[in-house]
Amino acid sequence: MKLNILGCYSATPSVFTNPTAQVLEINNHLFLIDCGEGTQVQLRKHKIKFNRIKHLFISHLHGDHFFGLVGLISTFRLLGREADLHIYSPKGLKEVITLQMKLANSWTNYNLIFHELTNKESELIFEDEKVEVHTIPLDHRIYTNGFLFKEKEGQRKLDMNAVLNANIDVAYYRKLKQGFDVKNEADKLIDNKTVTLPPNPPKSYAFCSDTAYNESIIPIIRHVDVLYHESTFLDQHEKLANPTKHSTAKQAASIAKKANVGTLILGHYSTRYDDLNVFKTEAQTIFDKVELGDDGKVFEF
Amino acid sequence: MKLNILGCYSATPSVFTNPTAQVLEINNHLFLIDCGEGTQVQLRKHKIKFNRIKHLFISHLHGDHFFGLVGLISTFRLLGREADLHIYSPKGLKEVITLQMKLANSWTNYNLIFHELTNKESELIFEDEKVEVHTIPLDHRIYTNGFLFKEKEGQRKLDMNAVLNANIDVAYYRKLKQGFDVKNEADKLIDNKTVTLPPNPPKSYAFCSDTAYNESIIPIIRHVDVLYHESTFLDQHEKLANPTKHSTAKQAASIAKKANVGTLILGHYSTRYDDLNVFKTEAQTIFDKVELGDDGKVFEF
Repeated sequence: MKLNILGCYSATPSVFTNPTAQVLEINNHLFLIDCGEGTQVQLRKHKIKFNRIKHLFISHLHGDHFFGLVGLISTFRLLGREADLHIYSPKGLKEVITLQMKLANSWTNYNLIFHELTNKESELIFEDEKVEVHTIPLDHRIYTNGFLFKEKEGQRKLDMNAVLNANIDVAYYRKLKQGFDVKNEADKLIDNKTVTLPPNPPKSYAFCSDTAYNESIIPIIRHVDVLYHESTFLDQHEKLANPTKHSTAKQAASIAKKANVGTLILGHYSTRYDDLNVFKTEAQTIFDKVELGDDGKVFEF
Repeated sequence: MKLNILGCYSATPSVFTNPTAQVLEINNHLFLIDCGEGTQVQLRKHKIKFNRIKHLFISHLHGDHFFGLVGLISTFRLLGREADLHIYSPKGLKEVITLQMKLANSWTNYNLIFHELTNKESELIFEDEKVEVHTIPLDHRIYTNGFLFKEKEGQRKLDMNAVLNANIDVAYYRKLKQGFDVKNEADKLIDNKTVTLPPNPPKSYAFCSDTAYNESIIPIIRHVDVLYHESTFLDQHEKLANPTKHSTAKQAASIAKKANVGTLILGHYSTRYDDLNVFKTEAQTIFDKVELGDDGKVFEF
């Protein structure tokens, strides 16, 4: 998986900071997560091919998480997009987007497929051969979901020396990868495990923004490789966190620790702070493996 | 008048080009004209004080002219704005903006006053002591207005030597500026014109984007000091201009010439062209006083 953070600051965009948007790449498949104002320019800046984005996930309908979407949809149209675009978001987004298309008398040539969410329990919202996406119900001022991206268990890998030694015809390689025992050219049944290696362990990524400290997400995100958890505030402003339904860096770290995740990436910083390093320092008093998200940063895992 | 061009490219924003937005300053009063995606960042970049903007004019509801508005309104709220904001736009904008505020459950603390336009004839839409704003009905794919900003005739200026020689009490200076004859300290009636000078000639600015070549605007914009007229295309793509209801640089220049304006500023360039100078060269085959609009350019007149 490759995570490209296009923007990770809260509230208003500025000359140097962008509101939330991320691109997650899994097996050449691009998922866009949130789409604050200016996301299309960030995509261009980071040379991400627009037409590779086929699925888009919006956590909630605060402007810093979706005001860039209508422009992106419109740009896709101007660029002659033909591929379907699936949008997963809280209910209401379809009305906003279609109203603006109606007023502009500009309809997309491609299919725009809205999957509007209302469920307050975690649910499977997307699945293909390689990936599942589940919602992570968050605790924010309006209906908000995080998203859990889970790779499926891959195929077993051929141990080529063993396969050749066992004298297995190439026609059976697919069966071997699928885990079956097969017969070799001498008609002898070969135990799969003697000629194949286990698949790469499937990776997982959880995106959690925006949310108050909320332990109920822990069972959903337990053991993920990477957790992006919002940390709008530092400890000195902890009193602001719960009323605004945001988290501090320490709270994000507590969730990471209790869920036993691999790495915690922080983000959604309030623009009141000049030095991001303090977020890391504070989080590391609770959980060691902390990375600072920042606009333009890429994480591979 | 001071015109600050924040963005003047058509269609999609890119890393180096911004969609339409301009700030016109008249006597310390700021008018924002159109508001493409990213306008709030452009305002910050050019250090324009947000709270000095009290009137906002949207030409039409294509995204490259208003997708930045909802974010700007939301940022005004986050910055604690208290002053009223008046928005002049085609009908429909109020519904778009209020729907998004409703979904976000985020209402402005300041008054948002929509003036929705439907008239197809030119009309006076704003007036204060110093300025009038009239619509300029344009010919585009959807209902579109340009805007004519006209300074009102100012007060006469005191010719201080003459005033002192005529022995006029300071209490009468205001009357003199207003053009009245007044009595001097010897009770003699003084002819206003002998002690005052004519006011500065009032300036005018016409914003015309987006529009096909349309001679019916000429009577409205005749003799303006500065005309901004869209020139989406060069001559080589003239055939695209009318079907898309846009203009070429030469067509913009023809309008400027026929309306006998002071200076023509070009803009709303299609991003297909690399060299803007060709727009100027082509326009100057018809009208001499041509300036190239560009993002970040400031014109004072």
